[in-house]
Amino acid sequence: MTSPNILLAHGSGGAMMHELIESFFASYGSDELLRADDAAVLGLGATCASRIAFSTDTFVVTPHFFPGGDIGRLAVCGTVNDVATSGAEVRWLSVGLVLEEGFALEDLRRICVSIADAAKEANVKIVTGDTKVVNRGHGDGIYINTSGIGLLGHGAPVLGGAQCKPGDKVLLSGTIGDHGIAIVSTREGLRFSTTIQSDAAPLNHLVSAVLAAAPHTRCFRDPTRGGLSSTVNELSAQSGTVFEIEEASVPVADEVRGACDMLGYDVFQVANEGKMVAVVPPDETEAALAAMRGARYGEQAAVIGEVCAVSEGSRPAAFVRTAFGSRRVLDMLAGEQLPRIC
Amino acid sequence: MTSPNILLAHGSGGAMMHELIESFFASYGSDELLRADDAAVLGLGATCASRIAFSTDTFVVTPHFFPGGDIGRLAVCGTVNDVATSGAEVRWLSVGLVLEEGFALEDLRRICVSIADAAKEANVKIVTGDTKVVNRGHGDGIYINTSGIGLLGHGAPVLGGAQCKPGDKVLLSGTIGDHGIAIVSTREGLRFSTTIQSDAAPLNHLVSAVLAAAPHTRCFRDPTRGGLSSTVNELSAQSGTVFEIEEASVPVADEVRGACDMLGYDVFQVANEGKMVAVVPPDETEAALAAMRGARYGEQAAVIGEVCAVSEGSRPAAFVRTAFGSRRVLDMLAGEQLPRIC
Repeated sequence: MTSPNILLAHGSGGAMMHELIESFFASYGSDELLRADDAAVLGLGATCASRIAFSTDTFVVTPHFFPGGDIGRLAVCGTVNDVATSGAEVRWLSVGLVLEEGFALEDLRRICVSIADAAKEANVKIVTGDTKVVNRGHGDGIYINTSGIGLLGHGAPVLGGAQCKPGDKVLLSGTIGDHGIAIVSTREGLRFSTTIQSDAAPLNHLVSAVLAAAPHTRCFRDPTRGGLSSTVNELSAQSGTVFEIEEASVPVADEVRGACDMLGYDVFQVANEGKMVAVVPPDETEAALAAMRGARYGEQAAVIGEVCAVSEGSRPAAFVRTAFGSRRVLDMLAGEQLPRIC
Repeated sequence: MTSPNILLAHGSGGAMMHELIESFFASYGSDELLRADDAAVLGLGATCASRIAFSTDTFVVTPHFFPGGDIGRLAVCGTVNDVATSGAEVRWLSVGLVLEEGFALEDLRRICVSIADAAKEANVKIVTGDTKVVNRGHGDGIYINTSGIGLLGHGAPVLGGAQCKPGDKVLLSGTIGDHGIAIVSTREGLRFSTTIQSDAAPLNHLVSAVLAAAPHTRCFRDPTRGGLSSTVNELSAQSGTVFEIEEASVPVADEVRGACDMLGYDVFQVANEGKMVAVVPPDETEAALAAMRGARYGEQAAVIGEVCAVSEGSRPAAFVRTAFGSRRVLDMLAGEQLPRIC
């Protein structure tokens, strides 16, 4: 690596984080860890037909409270959504808190209530927890780790980025960029901050609805850190395909588009916390789209592109077709666009 | 609560932390969370005879490297031991890192190798992970959350503090106080730091050996934060009994005893990271002790006391019988003795 020290970009969800994972965590010798899906799917042995899905995520967002949510809601929804991408029924969560000496108990109380409300909405149970306190001046008040477990019944399909095939359609559950722009605008005290809300939401019910309508769905992925751009790049690399996204088909709120123009952000690289990408076979696309639109948080779902074969002599990649008919490479976030968004 | 803000003592594993859990996390409405055993045991439904055990722990110890281990080994062993207390076969771990901008990649590499080595020794697999980076000046270089899952086969006994009964014997797998004293002596640069090593170790194999030899074992508990004192107080409260500990029977290394005298610590309240308490019925005590002594990390195991009925008009409590025949209450750590030890 270029620097001998950790940089903020190592946590961006982009290329540097992938480099860190490959060069450091490969030593764990775990296929599941390196498979690069959002949750590990684990068999329970001969006596049990079910499998479980397991995922973990730590939340360090600042500020702790923002339009549309807070770090507590984010911590529950983020892990619920990661487990849900496996197609599992999300059942149980752990909550590990790192609190800073001097953190206001009233803020902690608000965050705990928010955790309880989000868990109730997702219909998951918080079954184990841990609390550590670090010295004043460290830890930014509160960090929250959540780990989640879901159940996959006997015969549940194996979902994953590697399952994507040429001809598949790419669905997106709604507008992109809302969470990242809500955070930065709150942080910077920008004017439009009042109109843009984080989209943080539990999407496990939406995922179940899509799976019921489109049983051959290839994979789900929630485009959080690194945005939609990192997600489609990961999927193309996992499946050895080319992802073609139609820019005009991707829902973006006007305020978000305006904020991105003003701040110089590529909206495809801005984080989301309540959106889901689904890749489905062509003959199940309509059913999947209808199911998404019929589910809570999926009203603005759209088909945003398709999966293509890699052409002779080229490599897996992701592209965007602009409204003007031009075609540009959709790069994975290289450095750090906006730290501490989740 | 007395203070409107979080105090270091809220993370001590003692009375204030229990108060925090009861007053804040009760809102999650989860019996499992409040049962106060180290791992939640979860049924997988009608199609599966097995159950799983689930536990989480975050590690914020400073310094990151100390005699006998480092934060990586601690993070694996701590959660492996918590899951093992349920009697489950520990199988899978998640690793969530919070890295500080500027943290040395070389230190991260050493810690990752240590994580991999400890997981190999415990025979558990790291299957999912997450990495966040926080701004320079926050986070003390590295915090590590590990969550763990174990399997309980059909018919595996239900273990837990509530199972302890009058007449049961209390076993301890070895000397107490080593970890806490190793940390403080390294931190303060005390002379004896060279001779006292942390006991951080995975005890899942020891637990399995005891269970095989003493199938009616009531519970296991690893006396970490708050020390042996918090553990026996928790067990007496959970089971509505009185725990009587024989001071002379509790193994303590001379250097640790000396350090505690010098620093004014009660060795019963000093943290351990590689010790296990087991409560077993009288007729299985010998077999359990032999199994502990035959297992790695259990060579110095001893029977340290027994469980008694609460006498008329008194309440569940823990006592120590001193060598001089006197009897004193074994208090749960009230404030903060030594922060950031795990």
